[in-house]
Amino acid sequence: MKKINAIVVGSGNVGLKVIDILLQTKDFNLVGAIRRSGEPIAQYPNVVVKTSVDQFSEKIDVAFLAIPTREVPTQAKAYLAKGIHTVDSYDIHSSILEVRSELNEVARANNAVAIVSSGWDPGTDSIVRAMLMAMAPNGMTYTNFGPGMSMGHTVAVKAIEGVKDALSMTMPTGAGVHRRMVYVELSEGATPEIVENLIKTDPYFIHDETHVKFVDDVNLLKDVGHGVELTRKGASGTSGNQNFMFKMSIDNPALTAQVMVSSGRAAMRQEKGAYTLIEIPVVDFLEGEREDWIKALV
Amino acid sequence: MKKINAIVVGSGNVGLKVIDILLQTKDFNLVGAIRRSGEPIAQYPNVVVKTSVDQFSEKIDVAFLAIPTREVPTQAKAYLAKGIHTVDSYDIHSSILEVRSELNEVARANNAVAIVSSGWDPGTDSIVRAMLMAMAPNGMTYTNFGPGMSMGHTVAVKAIEGVKDALSMTMPTGAGVHRRMVYVELSEGATPEIVENLIKTDPYFIHDETHVKFVDDVNLLKDVGHGVELTRKGASGTSGNQNFMFKMSIDNPALTAQVMVSSGRAAMRQEKGAYTLIEIPVVDFLEGEREDWIKALV
Repeated sequence: MKKINAIVVGSGNVGLKVIDILLQTKDFNLVGAIRRSGEPIAQYPNVVVKTSVDQFSEKIDVAFLAIPTREVPTQAKAYLAKGIHTVDSYDIHSSILEVRSELNEVARANNAVAIVSSGWDPGTDSIVRAMLMAMAPNGMTYTNFGPGMSMGHTVAVKAIEGVKDALSMTMPTGAGVHRRMVYVELSEGATPEIVENLIKTDPYFIHDETHVKFVDDVNLLKDVGHGVELTRKGASGTSGNQNFMFKMSIDNPALTAQVMVSSGRAAMRQEKGAYTLIEIPVVDFLEGEREDWIKALV
Repeated sequence: MKKINAIVVGSGNVGLKVIDILLQTKDFNLVGAIRRSGEPIAQYPNVVVKTSVDQFSEKIDVAFLAIPTREVPTQAKAYLAKGIHTVDSYDIHSSILEVRSELNEVARANNAVAIVSSGWDPGTDSIVRAMLMAMAPNGMTYTNFGPGMSMGHTVAVKAIEGVKDALSMTMPTGAGVHRRMVYVELSEGATPEIVENLIKTDPYFIHDETHVKFVDDVNLLKDVGHGVELTRKGASGTSGNQNFMFKMSIDNPALTAQVMVSSGRAAMRQEKGAYTLIEIPVVDFLEGEREDWIKALV
């Protein structure tokens, strides 16, 4: 069986986990990683590192974009334009539809597939929300996150001037309402009040109750565990009190990376275009033959 | 918007709930029901009843087969041969792949779509199992059912000679192992030992610990509530201890019927052929526009 040739773009928390997973996933061949520095990756010295995809002689099937969410649209389009499928974990919920539509155009023009907003939320949680809507169309769904570190929010804080290091914790307060606890290590000379204000008015935080705490060493607080408790109470026709819960407690970058890798496989099986996870049959995420999974799982 | 013309075949627990749901689902038009007796349905006197689909003058888009599981293959093929999409809740796990393959052939030859094994298990639970496999490919999934009445098992017991009425309860004993508690009202003159042996050797029961209890009035024990607790502990790459749980507590025939109705909508959106639920993008089960759901759920 021909393996799927993959590259990983970026080598942060998620990028490293994508490498870890690809190295042990039988239907993928990890061709290499892209880093701006071009330096080898300390944890994976045998992984080939380039600064541009054009430096690889192999035909690349899928690029896993483990990059800051705001760089996704531009970078994804560049890969798609070369006919390379992309998997991103774009996570600004309010503009996912727009990004999908932009990538759809480039993907279709270049016979490529873009999997948009892969990961667990947006991503597999979205699949659960859609499925529960099909099971009980009337009712309420609440997605309660945490307690855990939000990667997207943490990256957003780190990008703010005056922030040396940061950690954004998501605390569930019930009914899908969350508090953001932001722990910040200031850069030398930065003014706490200005930094706090920049954080609280950032699009990632402006709608939530946000507390900013200044600490000496953010590293002592770090743990990449996370969780979700997604509930729906609804009605199937006139039958009410249909109760559903999806709960998980997970290593966040590892799960994001795993869903991305599974999405890379699904990319090989879709018609050209851009897709969010709810637009893909779940069986397409799985290694091997469809019929075997029907036998094992249905 | 053109509504989907639907008929309901059968008027048992699930058939009645399908009618209930169709009457309040905006994108469907309930054309009528098929009953062997041709008699009006007491609970829904306004629903047109026929003994055969050929008696309807309207073009039927979808037939919901709310019939005993063993009648599904034959009846589904008859509808598919007329170019009518079918939705069934065929629930004998070991032969789903075979039934799908048979229906696939007839569906493709007649430009129709068959949704096979719709409902919650097989059905939406299968979607959850497939999704968890994509999230943590190494590990163990356990599906724990109940306590609750199993419709499939109850119908199977009722079909046994000497059984006047029956109820089969599923009791979880952990790690996906279940006990079957079968409550039986005997027909006059039936021999308890013979009936008990027929039940315990039936394909539905032969692999499970089965207790048969004889009672005077099965009706006093009836409640259509059911539940599931589906768990997976697994690894994403080398990151273990990824813990997942999907739990629900529901009215069983109502949920089965709702998933079937949502599947009827999905049937209108698939290419000709037969599909289990894991082969269908979840967004296709939902009423309305794909883009609106991406905005709302992803």
